[in-house]
Amino acid sequence: MSKPSTVNRIIEIGRSSIDDYVVEAIVGLQEGPGVVVLKGRGPYISKAVDVYNELQSRLGDGLELVGVEIGSEKKGRPKSYILISVRKKF
Amino acid sequence: MSKPSTVNRIIEIGRSSIDDYVVEAIVGLQEGPGVVVLKGRGPYISKAVDVYNELQSRLGDGLELVGVEIGSEKKGRPKSYILISVRKKF
Repeated sequence: MSKPSTVNRIIEIGRSSIDDYVVEAIVGLQEGPGVVVLKGRGPYISKAVDVYNELQSRLGDGLELVGVEIGSEKKGRPKSYILISVRKKF
Repeated sequence: MSKPSTVNRIIEIGRSSIDDYVVEAIVGLQEGPGVVVLKGRGPYISKAVDVYNELQSRLGDGLELVGVEIGSEKKGRPKSYILISVRKKF
């Protein structure tokens, strides 16, 4: 992450359709100048990147990729995660 | 990516075991001060993050995460990818 940003919304990627998450992200981006975080865990990491790419293809230059963070959650058995932070370019 | 780095090795993550890729990455990191890139495409994006986390748990502070890039390849049907660049701290 480049610098601290207000978080409008954290979207946990799961079994819903990619389009559902894209719509939710677009709504979150309208809420203000803060970031929307796409969070994917375990097998949903790949889907989180799919959601980002779909969002990027819809919004083009209107979308800024603020940062990508990867890591492992330490609760119980370690589980990989990704956090993709995006915001609207004004 | 923070600044251009020599690439020691690009490791394409696929069906081999996570440990196989971890070993390959460690060998790549020994080759010099450049980066090793873990590349995952489509469903292997999640596994690329698993490989990174396993590498991180083995090397601890000896490993630096240089950058994470995500995007979509435009050849034919778009396919999501992740590039995870790491290097050894000397």
